[in-house]
Amino acid sequence: MDGARILHRIRHLGVISEDAPRLTRTYLTDTHRQANELVATWMREAGMAVRTDAVGNIIGRYEGRTPGLPALMIGSHLDTVRDAGKYDGMLGVVVGIECVAALHAEHERKGFAVEVVGFANEEGARFGATLTGSRAVAGTLDAAQLESRDAHGVTMAEAMRDFGLDPAKIGEAARRRNELLAYVEVHIEQGPVLEARDLSVGVVTAISGATRLMIELTGVAGHAGTVPMTQRHDALAAAAEAILTVERHCQGTAGLVGTVGRIEALPGAINVIPGVARFTIDIRAEQDADREAAVSRVTDDLIQIAERRRIGVDVKKLHEASSCLCAPPLMAALERAVDVIGGGKHFEALGLKPSFESMRLPSGAGHDAMAIAAITDVAMLFVRCKAGISHNPAESVSPADALTAAQTLRQFIRELRPPRRAAP
Amino acid sequence: MDGARILHRIRHLGVISEDAPRLTRTYLTDTHRQANELVATWMREAGMAVRTDAVGNIIGRYEGRTPGLPALMIGSHLDTVRDAGKYDGMLGVVVGIECVAALHAEHERKGFAVEVVGFANEEGARFGATLTGSRAVAGTLDAAQLESRDAHGVTMAEAMRDFGLDPAKIGEAARRRNELLAYVEVHIEQGPVLEARDLSVGVVTAISGATRLMIELTGVAGHAGTVPMTQRHDALAAAAEAILTVERHCQGTAGLVGTVGRIEALPGAINVIPGVARFTIDIRAEQDADREAAVSRVTDDLIQIAERRRIGVDVKKLHEASSCLCAPPLMAALERAVDVIGGGKHFEALGLKPSFESMRLPSGAGHDAMAIAAITDVAMLFVRCKAGISHNPAESVSPADALTAAQTLRQFIRELRPPRRAAP
Repeated sequence: MDGARILHRIRHLGVISEDAPRLTRTYLTDTHRQANELVATWMREAGMAVRTDAVGNIIGRYEGRTPGLPALMIGSHLDTVRDAGKYDGMLGVVVGIECVAALHAEHERKGFAVEVVGFANEEGARFGATLTGSRAVAGTLDAAQLESRDAHGVTMAEAMRDFGLDPAKIGEAARRRNELLAYVEVHIEQGPVLEARDLSVGVVTAISGATRLMIELTGVAGHAGTVPMTQRHDALAAAAEAILTVERHCQGTAGLVGTVGRIEALPGAINVIPGVARFTIDIRAEQDADREAAVSRVTDDLIQIAERRRIGVDVKKLHEASSCLCAPPLMAALERAVDVIGGGKHFEALGLKPSFESMRLPSGAGHDAMAIAAITDVAMLFVRCKAGISHNPAESVSPADALTAAQTLRQFIRELRPPRRAAP
Repeated sequence: MDGARILHRIRHLGVISEDAPRLTRTYLTDTHRQANELVATWMREAGMAVRTDAVGNIIGRYEGRTPGLPALMIGSHLDTVRDAGKYDGMLGVVVGIECVAALHAEHERKGFAVEVVGFANEEGARFGATLTGSRAVAGTLDAAQLESRDAHGVTMAEAMRDFGLDPAKIGEAARRRNELLAYVEVHIEQGPVLEARDLSVGVVTAISGATRLMIELTGVAGHAGTVPMTQRHDALAAAAEAILTVERHCQGTAGLVGTVGRIEALPGAINVIPGVARFTIDIRAEQDADREAAVSRVTDDLIQIAERRRIGVDVKKLHEASSCLCAPPLMAALERAVDVIGGGKHFEALGLKPSFESMRLPSGAGHDAMAIAAITDVAMLFVRCKAGISHNPAESVSPADALTAAQTLRQFIRELRPPRRAAP
């Protein structure tokens, strides 16, 4: 395993950008094609057969002891947000290739194939619609995505044709359940938990379910100097109470978080009492019941606040998704791998502390694994990132942590056994 | 006195606009000249000698028993905000002219002159700088205003020259203290207090002092799904606490109000914890001590909130002005006038309720009277406006209330006596 090569490849992908020196690589652009071609050369070097599927995913396959065995799929995405960091998505693809390269170098063939997938359009930066590549593989891609338009009015279907793909054939990207053994994704944490615990990697328990609401409070605008406090119906003051309510109801439950990220007060003048306040609420939880309880407490409080202040309230649900649970046997296998790589039991037997250990944590962000869970068991390994920063050029992963992730995944593959009846 | 004529004239001024059908009339534009010319014809009809002064105020003078006596100055402004209502400013000028027309019709000459002034640029919609006309009259105009620029980069000085004024001569607009007996301004309330009390007019006690602050809270941005609640430094949650603090500390004290009118959370995405929150605080009070106490309580709380949440806080003072007190003898004289016009004592003696009475209230908004207070005693009569709405096309005053205001001002003039030693 070569930590320097992993980092070098991530930097190489990091310069393929449609608005250099910033990193932005969106779906069905020239940079999408360039990234796929670069990844394909690495896949071939690692002994894989390479193809691009019907939606532009790049897929490398390393056969098992006999051709055509069900595959362990290792994947993540190659597209980015605008002005992105270099690791989000790319780390998982490069680490996957590194593991197959190690198998290939050792002429090791397993009782299953290994596929590495560079998914297209997880982020949705160009057309809005997300998870296109992984949903197509899972056979759950909504054809309505094809009609989504970019900033220039080009539809996804048109862009597919320009890219050399046939939008009528996206169904061909779908994989059958019995072609896959499991899916595992290495990804930067995009949060500060591992760093706070001083750990290189962590085993993901679930991709949190999420509810997103848009709230509009309607009070009465008025002159900031002339309306006595007792005669006000200040929409922003009501919103302030609501924001603190979100914070309060999402505190104290593990895996539950709540955020107000956008707010607008209208008319928005220093000397005018806000007549309207609009804000978003994003509540996520590992356990759906926790999320549902929090959403209902927040909504109840919102209605009470609005009634007390004689303010109108409108709650619009923008999005709702259930939690996606990782498969316990795969989680346990990843933990065993971490234990081996970190020295674990062996060190303990010698009376030493393991050089690192593993922890379990939920993923508050969405990932391709969420889509692939529709057709096979999934697991994720999180890698510590500096200060929890992502979707930002400051995104950073240490070479040592990247190598640890690769070694852990390599160990996971080493120990993975296909269930007896998994053969097609 | 003719209520229909007052309303007709207000409507006539209301169509002189630089962006009809909306009403916008800003300083040193063609519409400024047109409004001045129209008002000048009404002033001449009312028996006044008319001149435009060095900053573009239009001034009509109706001499007293002998020419050159100190003047009761009646004024308000003729410029508007963008997309304005028709009454804010104009009502006071038109009512003033109506009163002089009544004196003229009755061939009544007083022991003082009466001047009506249509002030230029109270609102500051074009150049930002406000109260240009009344400050020039008071001799307190800051010459730096001349360098302020409009949206096209034209300085106020350049625009003055284009208008036919000489920016070097603005000092000539200043009046001497002994030229004036007092200043009185009729203005719409721009608030809901008179309407709530079912009163046509009210006597202003003071133009509230004001402090305006810009607050910037700096926390740490992060992914809304991945940062646990216990590891957050959410700038918007801190701002929400601060907004409620402003509301709390400004409640329960008569004449004190506090408003957060603008807020911004950055980066401002539904799925990102706000790293920065910026908002404004506007605190006003009739009594300076009340305002100063509220500002200091709010600031102390802000610092505590920021410390508890480990968030950076920056407080910038944008503006501070002391309260401008109306002259008690003039207030009393206005109250006597309201009492006479409303039936007052006379009705009471007959066992009847007066048709209306007066109340005292502070002005939370700024007015030309504030500037003129530097050279003479000032008073203001507020007129009820519908739902307290102003700076908006929905601004509305009933013809009956406009007439009541004119009758009250006419009665005030009838009873006003110059102090014995006021002659120049």
